Amino acid sequence: MSTPLMNQLGVVKRSIVRAEREHVDHLGRFGSATVHEAMGRVGLLKPYMRPIWPGALVAGSAVTVLLHPGDNWMMHVVAEQIQPGDIVVAALTAECGDGYFGDLLATSFMARGAKALVIDAGVRDVRFLTEMGFPVWSKNISAKGTIKSTLGSVNIPVLCAGALVNPGDAIIADDDGVVVVPAADVARVAAVAQQREDLEGEKRAKLAFGVLGLDMYNMRGPLERAGLRYID
Amino acid sequence: MSTPLMNQLGVVKRSIVRAEREHVDHLGRFGSATVHEAMGRVGLLKPYMRPIWPGALVAGSAVTVLLHPGDNWMMHVVAEQIQPGDIVVAALTAECGDGYFGDLLATSFMARGAKALVIDAGVRDVRFLTEMGFPVWSKNISAKGTIKSTLGSVNIPVLCAGALVNPGDAIIADDDGVVVVPAADVARVAAVAQQREDLEGEKRAKLAFGVLGLDMYNMRGPLERAGLRYID
Amino acid sequence: MSTPLMNQLGVVKRSIVRAEREHVDHLGRFGSATVHEAMGRVGLLKPYMRPIWPGALVAGSAVTVLLHPGDNWMMHVVAEQIQPGDIVVAALTAECGDGYFGDLLATSFMARGAKALVIDAGVRDVRFLTEMGFPVWSKNISAKGTIKSTLGSVNIPVLCAGALVNPGDAIIADDDGVVVVPAADVARVAAVAQQREDLEGEKRAKLAFGVLGLDMYNMRGPLERAGLRYID
Amino acid sequence: MSTPLMNQLGVVKRSIVRAEREHVDHLGRFGSATVHEAMGRVGLLKPYMRPIWPGALVAGSAVTVLLHPGDNWMMHVVAEQIQPGDIVVAALTAECGDGYFGDLLATSFMARGAKALVIDAGVRDVRFLTEMGFPVWSKNISAKGTIKSTLGSVNIPVLCAGALVNPGDAIIADDDGVVVVPAADVARVAAVAQQREDLEGEKRAKLAFGVLGLDMYNMRGPLERAGLRYID
Amino acid sequence: MSTPLMNQLGVVKRSIVRAEREHVDHLGRFGSATVHEAMGRVGLLKPYMRPIWPGALVAGSAVTVLLHPGDNWMMHVVAEQIQPGDIVVAALTAECGDGYFGDLLATSFMARGAKALVIDAGVRDVRFLTEMGFPVWSKNISAKGTIKSTLGSVNIPVLCAGALVNPGDAIIADDDGVVVVPAADVARVAAVAQQREDLEGEKRAKLAFGVLGLDMYNMRGPLERAGLRYID
Amino acid sequence: MSTPLMNQLGVVKRSIVRAEREHVDHLGRFGSATVHEAMGRVGLLKPYMRPIWPGALVAGSAVTVLLHPGDNWMMHVVAEQIQPGDIVVAALTAECGDGYFGDLLATSFMARGAKALVIDAGVRDVRFLTEMGFPVWSKNISAKGTIKSTLGSVNIPVLCAGALVNPGDAIIADDDGVVVVPAADVARVAAVAQQREDLEGEKRAKLAFGVLGLDMYNMRGPLERAGLRYID
Repeated sequence: MSTPLMNQLGVVKRSIVRAEREHVDHLGRFGSATVHEAMGRVGLLKPYMRPIWPGALVAGSAVTVLLHPGDNWMMHVVAEQIQPGDIVVAALTAECGDGYFGDLLATSFMARGAKALVIDAGVRDVRFLTEMGFPVWSKNISAKGTIKSTLGSVNIPVLCAGALVNPGDAIIADDDGVVVVPAADVARVAAVAQQREDLEGEKRAKLAFGVLGLDMYNMRGPLERAGLRYID
Repeated sequence: MSTPLMNQLGVVKRSIVRAEREHVDHLGRFGSATVHEAMGRVGLLKPYMRPIWPGALVAGSAVTVLLHPGDNWMMHVVAEQIQPGDIVVAALTAECGDGYFGDLLATSFMARGAKALVIDAGVRDVRFLTEMGFPVWSKNISAKGTIKSTLGSVNIPVLCAGALVNPGDAIIADDDGVVVVPAADVARVAAVAQQREDLEGEKRAKLAFGVLGLDMYNMRGPLERAGLRYID
Repeated sequence: MSTPLMNQLGVVKRSIVRAEREHVDHLGRFGSATVHEAMGRVGLLKPYMRPIWPGALVAGSAVTVLLHPGDNWMMHVVAEQIQPGDIVVAALTAECGDGYFGDLLATSFMARGAKALVIDAGVRDVRFLTEMGFPVWSKNISAKGTIKSTLGSVNIPVLCAGALVNPGDAIIADDDGVVVVPAADVARVAAVAQQREDLEGEKRAKLAFGVLGLDMYNMRGPLERAGLRYID
Repeated sequence: MSTPLMNQLGVVKRSIVRAEREHVDHLGRFGSATVHEAMGRVGLLKPYMRPIWPGALVAGSAVTVLLHPGDNWMMHVVAEQIQPGDIVVAALTAECGDGYFGDLLATSFMARGAKALVIDAGVRDVRFLTEMGFPVWSKNISAKGTIKSTLGSVNIPVLCAGALVNPGDAIIADDDGVVVVPAADVARVAAVAQQREDLEGEKRAKLAFGVLGLDMYNMRGPLERAGLRYID
Repeated sequence: MSTPLMNQLGVVKRSIVRAEREHVDHLGRFGSATVHEAMGRVGLLKPYMRPIWPGALVAGSAVTVLLHPGDNWMMHVVAEQIQPGDIVVAALTAECGDGYFGDLLATSFMARGAKALVIDAGVRDVRFLTEMGFPVWSKNISAKGTIKSTLGSVNIPVLCAGALVNPGDAIIADDDGVVVVPAADVARVAAVAQQREDLEGEKRAKLAFGVLGLDMYNMRGPLERAGLRYID
Repeated sequence: MSTPLMNQLGVVKRSIVRAEREHVDHLGRFGSATVHEAMGRVGLLKPYMRPIWPGALVAGSAVTVLLHPGDNWMMHVVAEQIQPGDIVVAALTAECGDGYFGDLLATSFMARGAKALVIDAGVRDVRFLTEMGFPVWSKNISAKGTIKSTLGSVNIPVLCAGALVNPGDAIIADDDGVVVVPAADVARVAAVAQQREDLEGEKRAKLAFGVLGLDMYNMRGPLERAGLRYID
């Protein structure tokens, strides 16, 4: 990867190594916040990436596509590379808020087994996408369509909303945002996430009962040593 | 229209030529994305214009009003010019995010037969507006009210969120955004939109069946000629 | 208060004077827009403060907390100071959009009787917060967590989203935004808000009947004197 | 102009009526602030339009060009339509910050007699443009170049940075911003601007001498009647 | 100060206690960064406040004015309250980017002895202001003027660009930004700033000689204990 | 690089392979725009990265540092890794606009031979940095300092302002922005840039003489075939 972002236009990589399904599914039981913590607080896409409808939680393997401003030609090329369980991650070579994706492409993506779209640009037909139950995380929403005239690439490493996504990486997305987990780390991150989750149930019960985090986490000593003063 | 934006303060034009109702209603069967395509990709208001509640789709004739920052006096003046089926399009002489419109004005607008408000500023009482089912597309939401002291104008051409709107033009708005169609073009645009819509049903069925856009649109040849390479 | 924002780190004030419950509850019958008007149009937090789920309307007494970027340690300290009916108002010493608050802290806050959180930063676990019915007004949403290492303060005057909030002040928040009412003014503001509300019912009925604001508010004369011209 | 922004791609209008040179030159003695006042406070492009180097003041006739995102092909087409004294006004069909214009195009524009460029997008080679003394007002600066593949239009009415510019209109630009004056109004606006300017010299002298605006403008009475109270 | 931001419109406070001149002058020998450090990192206005010309460094006592969007009437009222050495701090009741201040007001302010203007809005005539050498820190620049019709207040506490400014407080402004120092703290902050400055000269000499901060500040031990690893 | 952004905190890589000096120097004869073109239009940092003073043009090898919000501890660690001709590229784990760098660090960096700093955050002491002639490209300017308490890393791959920068890559920066060239591509990119530059001199001469780009680039045929129509 010495020349990571050059000579990359016009390439479709067909064979990618996807994160292991079992572990991706395991990650899918947690939300993006827990996975992000389990990752050591890396891998989060910028928070301007928002779901077009609330309540979805998806986990899948990334199929990546690099698009040009105002041009969604490669969205049809990436459709062919989708396997069931994949999440399409669309990056842009320059900022653009046009509507790259609507109900026709969503129909095609769903027929191929895609679980979601993550796109650092705009989408449209959001009422239909909502009715179809197809989850999308995007930068914005716009009725403005795109042309089909310039080559991008499929399944190359991309920078999407400030995060590096390699094809095959696991993607976890929900109302809190989108996290990317490198394929090689999926099992380990899932294990750490599970540990966090296991601990949280007990904590939640204590907190609901009225126990303070100050006591549960033994914070009073450190706070006092840090100089916290109580006054009346 | 040699001096399009001068000498226009303090004028209310009562007689405007509205786009033909039949064709506006026809446009109302399509969403903003389809109409925008049918227009040749012009006429879209900037995508920061968002609905205050999801799911609405409206089509109507524009009644325009030009407002000053922090002053909604003319909203009462425009109310009198509303005819059933109209959509009020409110533009500002300078940027302002105050809440120009709430439940009282909405009650008045609905009583006059207004179908919606499109405003390049803020609105408030959004919980009530949602309960009333009155659709609004706005730049933002703010509890901050306005005063009533400066004259603007009604039914003059306005620049609203980056688009030129003449009184009588057709407005199509939904979750994807807001499109303006000049009154003289309504019939033609509706016909083009209908053609697009007719073609989409068949396409959607094919895509749902698993046919790829690559094949349906005969893109493989052009992509190859453009230099697309598949690698493993 | 000669040195309002100095020497304030590492202090927790336990005894604060809360706005009278009866009057706060009274304010809670109105929305933020009405209260803001009754205040004389001051006290509104900036409109980027948005609810994480629609439809909530809360009123309560402010318990304040000053946080550092990326550090939510003091959220556990403030939890202990919450009394039933309080609303936690969290300000930042510098801009930050991280997710300071999630389902565990919400469980703790609810157990203490908190009615809501207003935070000039980000929150996470929004799906759970929504299911729990805990209202939050925040600057944004982010899965990114925070550390616990730096002292802030609790129950000092804070600048939150452009407004000065003293501990004990009344907070009114709904879909239109967040308003702060100084504790000493709560009774008076509630009375003014009630007057406005009483007048609005009658106005609403007239407007729904088709009476124009132009006539109801006797605007035709002032508009004419201001120079408004009607043309055809 | 019933269909103002349709059917306009791929058109170059060669014969336009330019604002009269004498009056444009007259306007050039004032800054954008004075001309904007003389216009009745209309015609100002949005304030994000900034000069790439400080201190320039230009006045000229608008030659307009409509560009697509990421595509500057029409900049070469518009070059041929430039006459000495013209200012090129470049609008975009959608938002884009790429660098549309650099030292080669500037060399060409200067050879044709252009006085400046006003572009609602980005430019590059700003060090060279500064050395050449060619004034540019733009939305931003970017090293990112553009392609040459899509038709726009030349000398059609355009919406540039929130203002409607017709070919032939006068453009006044300086450090305060960019103002457009309709060709038909140039003489009248220049006369009003001259009146303002004539009055300002005397005012400036009084103010420099220590006379207060309160007295010079007779504001004390109106302020008192408006309720202004002086306290100690 | 129980109702800090109410009942405040239409008031001019004539007698204010200014920070002691000697200490303000002392603060003026340091930049905003040093003073901000000496304050304990509070009191900085938001960094969108930028100087209209580079290189100025001013220190003075705040005379405050609260303005309404689009209305600069009170700028003439505040002019009368200026004493030599004062800096006018102008806050807004709502966001506005219009040009509130130009060469005429600057002439008046300079005649009264004002050292600078800090305004959370826009200014104009920047070429003249630059030539006059009058320093201004503002949110933006705009040729758009304002009206004179609504009362604000003078010499009340204001929230300006995210900071609380009381009349009489010291203001320090340079290319790095604007800091407010409460009047009662001026002597103490100046002393702390002087200590910092005294230490910096020696440090600067060492660093220029090639000594590393790692060694000068004895950071190697703490870094190692924090877990820093060096690899090849 | 299977887990590109994990386990990376607390690491300092001492031995990096720098782009060859001769070719980096060659690149330094061109501006960022030409190099960006020669790269095939990749490698540009986002255009919000602006120089703190105009006119600088630098080329050097990247030494990278990853920083936490509000914490500049690692700036002292990276200082030790600087070799003459290096440019420090500072990335952030989350968005922050604080002033991470001032005159003391600049003194140290210059003593080590650094040619410039590129930082996706804020800097301060800009008047001194300007006087010292040390070039900085940053996201913003802020007097707000930082603490020294959290480990980041040095000389790991970083995402800086939307671009992937590996230690040793070449950095070219000027008034148009900042471009990163992978170390392995420096010779090739310099050669391509030289070719472009060689061609531009002749073009510039022709354009200055009045030849149109339409003719020089043989655009009239393609424009006509694309459908361009000339009207009067």
